[in-house]
Amino acid sequence: MGKKCKVTFFPDRKEVVVDAGTTVLSAALSAQIALASDCGGEGVCGKCRVAVKAGRITAAGRAKRALRGGAPGTVLACQALVMSDLNVEIPPEARLDAGAPGGEEMDLRCKGLFEQIEEAATPERKPPEQPAELAPVVTKVYLELPPPDLNDRLSDFERVCRGVAQKTGVEVVPSGLANIRELGPLLRSCDWKVTATVLHDPEAPRIMAIEAGDRSAHHYGFVFDIGTTTISGQLVECRQGRVLGTKVTYNRQATFGSDVIARIIYAQAPDGLERLHAAVVDAMNEMIEAFCREHGVDLNDASSVSVAGNTTMIHLLLKIDPRHIRQEPYVPVANVVPMVRAADAGIKIGPHGVLLCAPGVSSYVGGDITAGLLACGMHRSPDVSVLIDIGTNGEIALGNNEWMISCAASAGPAFEGSGMSCGLRAVRGAIQTCVLDPKTHEVAFETIGGDRPRGICGSGYIDLMRSLLERRLLDKNGRFHQETKTKRLRRGKDDWEFVVAWQKDAGVDRDIVVTEADLDNLKRAKAAIYSGLATLLRHMDMTAADVKKIYLAGGFGTALNIDSAVQIGLAPDVEQGRFVFMGNTSLAGARLRLLHRELLRETEAVAANTTYFELSTDPQYMDEYMAALFFPHTDVTRFPSARYTRQK
Amino acid sequence: MGKKCKVTFFPDRKEVVVDAGTTVLSAALSAQIALASDCGGEGVCGKCRVAVKAGRITAAGRAKRALRGGAPGTVLACQALVMSDLNVEIPPEARLDAGAPGGEEMDLRCKGLFEQIEEAATPERKPPEQPAELAPVVTKVYLELPPPDLNDRLSDFERVCRGVAQKTGVEVVPSGLANIRELGPLLRSCDWKVTATVLHDPEAPRIMAIEAGDRSAHHYGFVFDIGTTTISGQLVECRQGRVLGTKVTYNRQATFGSDVIARIIYAQAPDGLERLHAAVVDAMNEMIEAFCREHGVDLNDASSVSVAGNTTMIHLLLKIDPRHIRQEPYVPVANVVPMVRAADAGIKIGPHGVLLCAPGVSSYVGGDITAGLLACGMHRSPDVSVLIDIGTNGEIALGNNEWMISCAASAGPAFEGSGMSCGLRAVRGAIQTCVLDPKTHEVAFETIGGDRPRGICGSGYIDLMRSLLERRLLDKNGRFHQETKTKRLRRGKDDWEFVVAWQKDAGVDRDIVVTEADLDNLKRAKAAIYSGLATLLRHMDMTAADVKKIYLAGGFGTALNIDSAVQIGLAPDVEQGRFVFMGNTSLAGARLRLLHRELLRETEAVAANTTYFELSTDPQYMDEYMAALFFPHTDVTRFPSARYTRQK
Repeated sequence: MGKKCKVTFFPDRKEVVVDAGTTVLSAALSAQIALASDCGGEGVCGKCRVAVKAGRITAAGRAKRALRGGAPGTVLACQALVMSDLNVEIPPEARLDAGAPGGEEMDLRCKGLFEQIEEAATPERKPPEQPAELAPVVTKVYLELPPPDLNDRLSDFERVCRGVAQKTGVEVVPSGLANIRELGPLLRSCDWKVTATVLHDPEAPRIMAIEAGDRSAHHYGFVFDIGTTTISGQLVECRQGRVLGTKVTYNRQATFGSDVIARIIYAQAPDGLERLHAAVVDAMNEMIEAFCREHGVDLNDASSVSVAGNTTMIHLLLKIDPRHIRQEPYVPVANVVPMVRAADAGIKIGPHGVLLCAPGVSSYVGGDITAGLLACGMHRSPDVSVLIDIGTNGEIALGNNEWMISCAASAGPAFEGSGMSCGLRAVRGAIQTCVLDPKTHEVAFETIGGDRPRGICGSGYIDLMRSLLERRLLDKNGRFHQETKTKRLRRGKDDWEFVVAWQKDAGVDRDIVVTEADLDNLKRAKAAIYSGLATLLRHMDMTAADVKKIYLAGGFGTALNIDSAVQIGLAPDVEQGRFVFMGNTSLAGARLRLLHRELLRETEAVAANTTYFELSTDPQYMDEYMAALFFPHTDVTRFPSARYTRQK
Repeated sequence: MGKKCKVTFFPDRKEVVVDAGTTVLSAALSAQIALASDCGGEGVCGKCRVAVKAGRITAAGRAKRALRGGAPGTVLACQALVMSDLNVEIPPEARLDAGAPGGEEMDLRCKGLFEQIEEAATPERKPPEQPAELAPVVTKVYLELPPPDLNDRLSDFERVCRGVAQKTGVEVVPSGLANIRELGPLLRSCDWKVTATVLHDPEAPRIMAIEAGDRSAHHYGFVFDIGTTTISGQLVECRQGRVLGTKVTYNRQATFGSDVIARIIYAQAPDGLERLHAAVVDAMNEMIEAFCREHGVDLNDASSVSVAGNTTMIHLLLKIDPRHIRQEPYVPVANVVPMVRAADAGIKIGPHGVLLCAPGVSSYVGGDITAGLLACGMHRSPDVSVLIDIGTNGEIALGNNEWMISCAASAGPAFEGSGMSCGLRAVRGAIQTCVLDPKTHEVAFETIGGDRPRGICGSGYIDLMRSLLERRLLDKNGRFHQETKTKRLRRGKDDWEFVVAWQKDAGVDRDIVVTEADLDNLKRAKAAIYSGLATLLRHMDMTAADVKKIYLAGGFGTALNIDSAVQIGLAPDVEQGRFVFMGNTSLAGARLRLLHRELLRETEAVAANTTYFELSTDPQYMDEYMAALFFPHTDVTRFPSARYTRQK
């Protein structure tokens, strides 16, 4: 081709120059604009519809669809090929995270690229089984070495190694040239006072860097949970093991498809894998830069990044071809990922920095779950417990210090607020708890940070469903009782909907509602999770009563009302004292791995010892699932505490 | 500056464009012309004198010397700065290896860049203590893996690791991303039949590469001895441990100084370290390329390079600042060098290839000696033996399987043929043995390869000295008996000299002679070595009679006459059965390390257990040295078999 075209996106006024023949979706991505796209650019989902205001386009493969927009001039960005300079208007709903139109953008404008999460937003309960002693994977050791003399002629590098061994008891293995090349002048320039950065690789501990003077107080690491929908990150001060900051951002891979299957398909497109990899790594690097800027951290003082994520996310992070994850027999390229140089994965920390990825169990139970087990300490306890991690998928692990079994339920991201008409993840302005007045059906709610409401997050939806059920606004199928007298219940554009907050009270310029379609999503999500757990228990010849602890994890915010979760049939109906709400266990487990090196091998053992149970091939799972597609369940005897089933 | 000047060198007609202000020496180097320079460009040695035929130069620091050439227009290349386009004539004597003018060049023209050494030229005696079983550091393992199914869902990478463990018993540690990224499609494209290249790192064995199909028969490594004056290399087929070829070339670092001290000084100049590093790495890479071309070896099938060299050479190879080697207390940056990626040192083999460097003892007893000890098996034998390695320095190690002591004697490179009027290393055309007719003083000699003589190598000089002594042409001080009647003894240009071969019989266009200056060099070299050994023995309260084996190593060629070495006072006067002539033990030891992985740790133990004895601070060494500056020695009772001392 050769011809270059300038594409200008509105209202952002972002310009980008691309080759003629590039899709508008690619052009938007080059301009750092993330468009919604659930099908991975296949021209199927219709989410990336944009308006071409000036210029010439042509249609790719699915010509009719490409030009069959809604309004005149609208096209699917993934199917429209740039043929000349273009002006393109992006409607709010075509943006990634259209669920919180305006609000999210405003937030980004006000506060920078990343959400600032209140410390309280990720509660950190420390199960008793956790290691107490801080023993980071990377340590910085300050050494005052004796200079060589004619009686002590050990070479410079061996002198440093001896110093480390004397001070820490760790016998390091010589490794790498970078530390050695300038070592002679370095040692003599600082009077033999140096700081050695030691990587406690379980196989072969080694020196990563040697710096002049005492740098032991400057010692940082990063922790990430890479979710299909969101990426959470933390800056950790490693000497004392303190979390200095937490940020959350959307996973920009969502532009290429909302779930792992769509992304695996997209990875097979030309440059697909490269783009998916860049999307996640760029987000991590931007977060790292922002942390460093805000906390005055020098990148060279950051030596370690600990990551947990599902198996597909880890493949894409490391640019490993993921295609076989979705082909029978569903085998990933690697469950156990080697410790590698962070730079080899494109992550920009100190040049010597390492990347640790939590090992996964299988294609659909990844390192986020093994990290979660670690965070809960389930693998160390003789009591049988269960971890339910509700993200874009719902993964469940059941077991104790002798056995562990896990499964993945296709719950969808409803509880993360994704794909919902007014969904929001647990960020400021999200409705996190709510209750309906028994008489007036007025809604009392609480938002994260106390801001005007901008949307509803997972815990808010769970409270809302429980109230709607208890107030008889919703039947056991999840349909509104349309005859109920309240102006909050109304016929919306496509669907019946209930108004949770009126526009006049909201932080966005529309009413905040929950639709029947939303409720259907939520019902399917809760059914998938509950029936997954039920199937695992049945497989082990157990009941919920045999489970001593139920760890609930996921991006619900702090306010998950466990009773509400039981009332809607998401969680089993056992005494509330057995529930522990853990927040983001993937992030917590990744942090534990960074700060407690003995957990590296322990996680590998957990991953190796956890059995993967495939729900889709289990004949009883579908029955369980169908039976769970009611509120709280077809078999109401399983939920004796769900009072609304008894009355009326 | 900015101004560019074209410098043309004659008779090569090589052109190079340099910045104005560059030295002519640097310009020559850029044109790949290696000039002689013993002082490292300090303007002191006068060896780099060239003739500027056209153009303008100016003088650097030592202005007078720079322009004080011999003939009009001649300057020191290291002191003359290019100021305009130049034509420069390089006289033969200014070239590196001026010792064999014409001959060497002819050889290069005829046979490519590298000397082809006859297999016989590096004799390989296998001491009984050597390991018998082949166990290369890198192995290639062909695997026919069972494909995954629903009952065997191990991930792809773990499947390969399991295959390696089942076939070899080696539990590999996951490592690196390069092997993993394309592994999924690779395994499925070749029906799960792959070849894993396994690095048996003693700390953490790991997979270096995974290839489709059975590639186990394509498995090569390279071995190098990096000497101050010469670089020897071998191509090794690793499956059966066969040496496929051997090459020797000059170490082009010699342009920057003939000994390690001059090079360490040069390394402190701007770009000095970079240039020294490039000089050795380029030579290695060219040799590797030539081997691959000649033997049809694909670089990707070469996974390992094993190197031995003195401590300075290893520092320069790895681009480690060597300056402290020559500053009290003479401590190198590293004696034990980590196993690194060959690419990190600039060595071009397969991208995953590793570089192993034999660990050294101290600044002046390097990995060439520990490799040599390995090759002799001295460290495994209960008998006390000694290794005498005669290169540019003379290193001596004495000991057994319980203790080892070593020293470095400043012998100079006379026995390598360097710095001698007609010296040659052990290459084709070198006089390797000779004997004088008792009556006529005619010389009967043998050359390597049977070619017309081009010069004299170490073993030839030793024979020659012995004959000159026995024939009374030389006195015990190493001076000619000028009254002897033979036309072969004559007054040369600067000095008395003895004609070994007349021009009409030679492969060069001049008589091949030995001068009194040559004999003085040889005498100092043999004195340094003998007195080093004597000092070590005395330090251990031993005499030569206590030594069961004397291993002689160095670039003498195959024909070293041990009796001659004793007669001139180089080697101690013990029964000949105790001598073993080993050839290049540094190269042999490096090869052993490549092919017998258990020796990696063993070499480190040898290096750690070998005491370094500093001759220069020992009060008795100088006495020993002075006493050895005679033929065979001041104390003739030490050489009872030297018959010439008794007659007359």
